[in-house]
Amino acid sequence: MGGSARRAHAHAPATLSNLGCGFDVLGLALEAPGDEVVASIASGRGVVAVGVTGEEAGVPGDPTRNSAALAAQAVIDRSGLDAGVEILLRKGIPFASGLGGSAASAVAGALATDELLGSRLDGGALLECALQGELSGSGSEAADNVAASLTGGLVLALPGRPPVVVRLPAPAGLAVAVARPHLEVETRVARELLGAEITLAAGVRQWGNTAGLVAGLFREEWELIARCLRDEVAEPVRAGLVPGFREAKAAALRAGSLGAGLSGSGPAVFALCRGRNAAECAADAMQKAFGEHSGLGCDAFVSAADAPGARIVPESTGALAGDDARTPPRASQL
Amino acid sequence: MGGSARRAHAHAPATLSNLGCGFDVLGLALEAPGDEVVASIASGRGVVAVGVTGEEAGVPGDPTRNSAALAAQAVIDRSGLDAGVEILLRKGIPFASGLGGSAASAVAGALATDELLGSRLDGGALLECALQGELSGSGSEAADNVAASLTGGLVLALPGRPPVVVRLPAPAGLAVAVARPHLEVETRVARELLGAEITLAAGVRQWGNTAGLVAGLFREEWELIARCLRDEVAEPVRAGLVPGFREAKAAALRAGSLGAGLSGSGPAVFALCRGRNAAECAADAMQKAFGEHSGLGCDAFVSAADAPGARIVPESTGALAGDDARTPPRASQL
Repeated sequence: MGGSARRAHAHAPATLSNLGCGFDVLGLALEAPGDEVVASIASGRGVVAVGVTGEEAGVPGDPTRNSAALAAQAVIDRSGLDAGVEILLRKGIPFASGLGGSAASAVAGALATDELLGSRLDGGALLECALQGELSGSGSEAADNVAASLTGGLVLALPGRPPVVVRLPAPAGLAVAVARPHLEVETRVARELLGAEITLAAGVRQWGNTAGLVAGLFREEWELIARCLRDEVAEPVRAGLVPGFREAKAAALRAGSLGAGLSGSGPAVFALCRGRNAAECAADAMQKAFGEHSGLGCDAFVSAADAPGARIVPESTGALAGDDARTPPRASQL
Repeated sequence: MGGSARRAHAHAPATLSNLGCGFDVLGLALEAPGDEVVASIASGRGVVAVGVTGEEAGVPGDPTRNSAALAAQAVIDRSGLDAGVEILLRKGIPFASGLGGSAASAVAGALATDELLGSRLDGGALLECALQGELSGSGSEAADNVAASLTGGLVLALPGRPPVVVRLPAPAGLAVAVARPHLEVETRVARELLGAEITLAAGVRQWGNTAGLVAGLFREEWELIARCLRDEVAEPVRAGLVPGFREAKAAALRAGSLGAGLSGSGPAVFALCRGRNAAECAADAMQKAFGEHSGLGCDAFVSAADAPGARIVPESTGALAGDDARTPPRASQL
């Protein structure tokens, strides 16, 4: 596809972030759900229209506040073309769920728009454009969700301009369980809770654990991975935002997971597991715990830890429509 | 050698700690200098006498304050034997130099005493005994120096009781330059400077860098290693303690090192380098910078990054004496 195409279609996966010890620096792409963007040439200049379908509740349709549209605008600006673009965003990721929804929208918006305009940008430039969209969506400059959604797999995103993205190895069989209680936690609110300082002692434990987790991933040492999946910084402050979180986490650990915690600012809870069957058990246990202890409805699903990143969806199958075979697989509901 | 030996002799190397981004969790053993302990059976119970020779200025001879003696006492207590032990400590590592002197004394004291009493303790128990000595010497519970001195090479020491020690790979050719200006910085004083809190933003950069450094070491990605050798926490506060530090660091970077910083609380400055020749250049540059900008005398030397850890010195060559062939190699003075 080149600059002469009239439309382009991209898919970007949901992501976990923080992963226990890696507040703002670790991300992991999920097999599903995901967001999709179809970008089309339109009359006018810049992003002239935005439509939102799917899990659209809470997602701003205003082009100056929508993360897909802002990322698309950043791509247009970088490309230096006098183009008008219309964005159709199909949300597969629920709003404020802790699954990187604004990041996935931004990545899909950037990727579809770049494809529409002739694939002028490299990966680093796409990352920066997507980050401009994400900043508006979450109020965070952290690149963890955006980098994982763009790249796929398990990534380390070092803060900076531009961020440095390091793909980390996922040991064979590493899988993740996700439970998403039906509750919204706004990232901005959860960030304000944290305050501007942490204790040095908590910091030492945290950077020991991030270093140990990375070593465990390279060595495929499950015990070390499990030892390091601890959040000394955000979880102690944020746990109270999600009724049933502590019980769900405890249930995942009892079910044999390596470790569990809030994804991003929650409410989604992840559990890293050794093998997909173990992840299915942990997902089931967390879903039951939320039902028993919070009264909240809850989706639960599993994913490999090495899921692919964002991709262009070929035009022959690319029309945005309902939940038919042409849309990406939805999260399985246990 | 067994429980019937009348004396045992151990050598433990000096170590770097922190290594830029790994405050209190990363350590690296040096080829030289090192401390040595000869432990001998004596009448009485516990550590009955301590002698100190070599670079002894500042090192307490009191058994209740000497880190080698305290580690030896911990070994006696753990062994459950009603033994009397005399300790002769030969300091090769200058006091308060930032090169893990109290840790090396503790490791040598623990190892020699355990050998004297019949090698009853495993590596984990030796680590804990040495940590008891180190706590008195530095006021720190951090295990980074002790773990590196005991194990050798580049280690990650996760805080806890007991600490978890993870040996990290050193890419082929990784070498280190060390400059030690003739100045004492007491660890206790340098720790008090830090205060109890850090900013969350500095913390995020720090644990991003520790994770990235570990990934760089596993992947042998020199650029990533260099990117992550930054201390966001201790160096900004402590740099002022060491006249000429900033100029020495800048000189090491100009000489092509991957990164440089204070070792522990200083005054020693390390520079990680790609290849031993590069390390020789960085050592020379740092030594000159200290001479020009601080007026301090300065030793400088180099080491591989995969130097061996503590060892028993065979009795046939084990007498503590002057700087003859039976003592370990001293740091080369450039």
